[in-house]
Amino acid sequence: MLSEDEFSEWYNDIVEKAGLCDKRYPVKGMNIWTPYGWKLMSLIDAVTHSEMARTGHREVCFPLLIPEDQFAKEEKHIKGFGGEVYWVTHAGLNPLDIRLLLRPTSETAMYPIFALWIRAHTDLPFKVYQICNVFRYETKQTRAFVRVREIHFFEAHTCHADFEDAERQIREDLEIMSVVGKSLCLPYMEMRRPDWDKFAGAHYSVGIDVFMPTGRTIQIGGIHQYRENFAKAYGITYEDEKGEHRLAHQTTYGMSERLVGAVVAVHHDQKGLKFPPAVAPIQVVIVPIPAKELQEKVAQECRTVFHRLQSNGIRAHLDERDLRPGNKFYDWEEKGVPLRLELGKRDLANNAAVLVRRDNGAKVSVPRDELIMIVKRILDEIGISMLKAAEEQLKAGIRDVEALDDLPVGVIRMRWCAEEACGKDAEARTGLNILGTRYSGEQAEGKCAACWKPAKTYLYAARTY
Amino acid sequence: MLSEDEFSEWYNDIVEKAGLCDKRYPVKGMNIWTPYGWKLMSLIDAVTHSEMARTGHREVCFPLLIPEDQFAKEEKHIKGFGGEVYWVTHAGLNPLDIRLLLRPTSETAMYPIFALWIRAHTDLPFKVYQICNVFRYETKQTRAFVRVREIHFFEAHTCHADFEDAERQIREDLEIMSVVGKSLCLPYMEMRRPDWDKFAGAHYSVGIDVFMPTGRTIQIGGIHQYRENFAKAYGITYEDEKGEHRLAHQTTYGMSERLVGAVVAVHHDQKGLKFPPAVAPIQVVIVPIPAKELQEKVAQECRTVFHRLQSNGIRAHLDERDLRPGNKFYDWEEKGVPLRLELGKRDLANNAAVLVRRDNGAKVSVPRDELIMIVKRILDEIGISMLKAAEEQLKAGIRDVEALDDLPVGVIRMRWCAEEACGKDAEARTGLNILGTRYSGEQAEGKCAACWKPAKTYLYAARTY
Repeated sequence: MLSEDEFSEWYNDIVEKAGLCDKRYPVKGMNIWTPYGWKLMSLIDAVTHSEMARTGHREVCFPLLIPEDQFAKEEKHIKGFGGEVYWVTHAGLNPLDIRLLLRPTSETAMYPIFALWIRAHTDLPFKVYQICNVFRYETKQTRAFVRVREIHFFEAHTCHADFEDAERQIREDLEIMSVVGKSLCLPYMEMRRPDWDKFAGAHYSVGIDVFMPTGRTIQIGGIHQYRENFAKAYGITYEDEKGEHRLAHQTTYGMSERLVGAVVAVHHDQKGLKFPPAVAPIQVVIVPIPAKELQEKVAQECRTVFHRLQSNGIRAHLDERDLRPGNKFYDWEEKGVPLRLELGKRDLANNAAVLVRRDNGAKVSVPRDELIMIVKRILDEIGISMLKAAEEQLKAGIRDVEALDDLPVGVIRMRWCAEEACGKDAEARTGLNILGTRYSGEQAEGKCAACWKPAKTYLYAARTY
Repeated sequence: MLSEDEFSEWYNDIVEKAGLCDKRYPVKGMNIWTPYGWKLMSLIDAVTHSEMARTGHREVCFPLLIPEDQFAKEEKHIKGFGGEVYWVTHAGLNPLDIRLLLRPTSETAMYPIFALWIRAHTDLPFKVYQICNVFRYETKQTRAFVRVREIHFFEAHTCHADFEDAERQIREDLEIMSVVGKSLCLPYMEMRRPDWDKFAGAHYSVGIDVFMPTGRTIQIGGIHQYRENFAKAYGITYEDEKGEHRLAHQTTYGMSERLVGAVVAVHHDQKGLKFPPAVAPIQVVIVPIPAKELQEKVAQECRTVFHRLQSNGIRAHLDERDLRPGNKFYDWEEKGVPLRLELGKRDLANNAAVLVRRDNGAKVSVPRDELIMIVKRILDEIGISMLKAAEEQLKAGIRDVEALDDLPVGVIRMRWCAEEACGKDAEARTGLNILGTRYSGEQAEGKCAACWKPAKTYLYAARTY
């Protein structure tokens, strides 16, 4: 595993070298999305949009600014976020009557309006989402994509007739998460956060945690069961079949640009990034191999291949720069392009092309007639093999411990009596963050690692980003 | 033509009734994009994205917040916008050292970074764009999509080696504008704004003006030639082929959610909206015609038709609500769906379906075997005929005048000696806004309407939104 210092140095460097962002913007924690990074983010968003359409969520776009009084209605929520919001106090030359804040998340912008939109049981389930920018005045050290102050954000909000239907929604959210995770070749843990660490205002929270090469975890998604908590504060009620007015049950599901951070960190080697084929901005880069004679013929054939790939829905790029092939290989490896296609004089004669996999370096000469089919198959194989490799890392990263001293690096799994006092004790004694328990449930036999009374389940802890 | 009062009442009402936005958000001038309206905006954005890809613009995403000192570097620019920006002065519980403003447009966020990105002539032309939200503290009366304080915005920014290449860019922008205009069935005038009314910091500005049913015009796009103005202020230089350092020439091209406002206003009748087929969120709505017997058979056939349309890339919606067909017709006409498909018992027997055009009410029974082909053809025809109708309105709305008194309603075209004094005089005496001169150039013979000296060209004026 990488040390935190090694990782930080590498990570902070590669995100700029590979062209994912530019950190020279003069506001701390607010970076510029450069074209290559933004394309990656957009392709990840496209997976999300497509899942939202599949599951009948409708897209909306709410205002960025929230009046202070409206924000303050759900008490726990304002406690959770109050210290980290940006305040707009003036417009033009005048002070505002009511201060406005930049949304840190949109519950308090949306829910007073949901109260107007939702009238009867026939309006339920109600499922909307938006992809937007949110703002959090982070006081911790910032890091590109992982901890920033302007966050590219996805948030789905739903309202339901009862707790059970909201629970169904959470299962659907986990299904969506699994589609997104597969596209990114990212395995993760679905953790039910302990009560003392749930989202501000939630009944319970599920954190989606990815294992990082330093042994820490990063939360890339959050799913929250609100029960009637927000509905009470914002008056979201509906008339049921019998004509009675009831509070709606609500859930939310959020993801952010941390998905990019996790992709960068989890899939890499000494050469640089390795992008999952499903979201790679460039899936195949074509590098012409110079030949003294037939130079123009090679160039022409490369262009033909480029257009064939493009018109078959493969994101291809033809690198015609005046550089040595070796330099080009180096560049595109660093930038994580999953597949390289080389074409030179010899391939011309054989009606062939050479394919080189970024994930394992495997090189193969293939007939150009079957190119599209083979490229698609290899891209699929790369995806499968990247996911498998990451799954093995995650598996190896979870360490069972019997007691709370002498802890290994990684995710710690300990037996737990399920008492809050013991959980907090474990948190204090290990100095780790408690991730919680498996959302799917897990039974433990034996003794609680903190109090030695009989254990009920397993508690997970790790250092987190 | 509609009076301003009639139009305002109708417009302010229809945008909510048709489900395009909700104006009940508690911050003035900041509305909620509801699913139907947001889908329309997204489809318009899709046209823009596709044109950007075609013309080699790369997408970026810059931070929303701009430090005050950086904003103030281009003097005319800050004069133009200074009075209408929102100021972030606090974060968490602390006042900020340097105040941040919400971008009213992104020149001052981007250009210091362009200065780092652009080094040599090989980096030029440099073409990027973003689709984002911008903020302007409007003091005039707000109106959904037309004058709002949080604006959904498109902005392309380019850098060039010289003035001529920047001019080429402006011609390309006009070509892109024409593709967008056609998709929206919106004819427009390309007006070179008078010098005293150009964009803050520009060398010259081209306004894209659409004729509204009240006789006023609305600017839906702006293209600006900056020459070296911003490059000087922000130090954007490049090394030319001879190794000399030169200032870059720059252009911008902007459009906004006003496109939606223009579509709503230009295409409508007493029944409600008429959406251009290319961007209509629903292109074909299927309404089953109830039959006592065969009810289930009709429903099933409607579902089959729905899936056939969908899988052929047509945005279809099947209305299975428990309502009378007449009520459904009324709803979808109001919401501007270009084509209605009715299917009942009789159509079942004939293997037919009835198509009703929203634009002209024409009704035709068509064989279901040829449905896809016919639907596509009719959608095309609707687009062509909507554009033609709007072109005729625009043409009829431009009125030649000889003198500056007793003006007709609409766009006024007057002969002009091209002197600023006369232009300003015309502005003062007519009480209209000067739109400028045709970007393509136009020669006039006769006498200037203001000073009676020989005219050189035509000057246009109108009341504007």
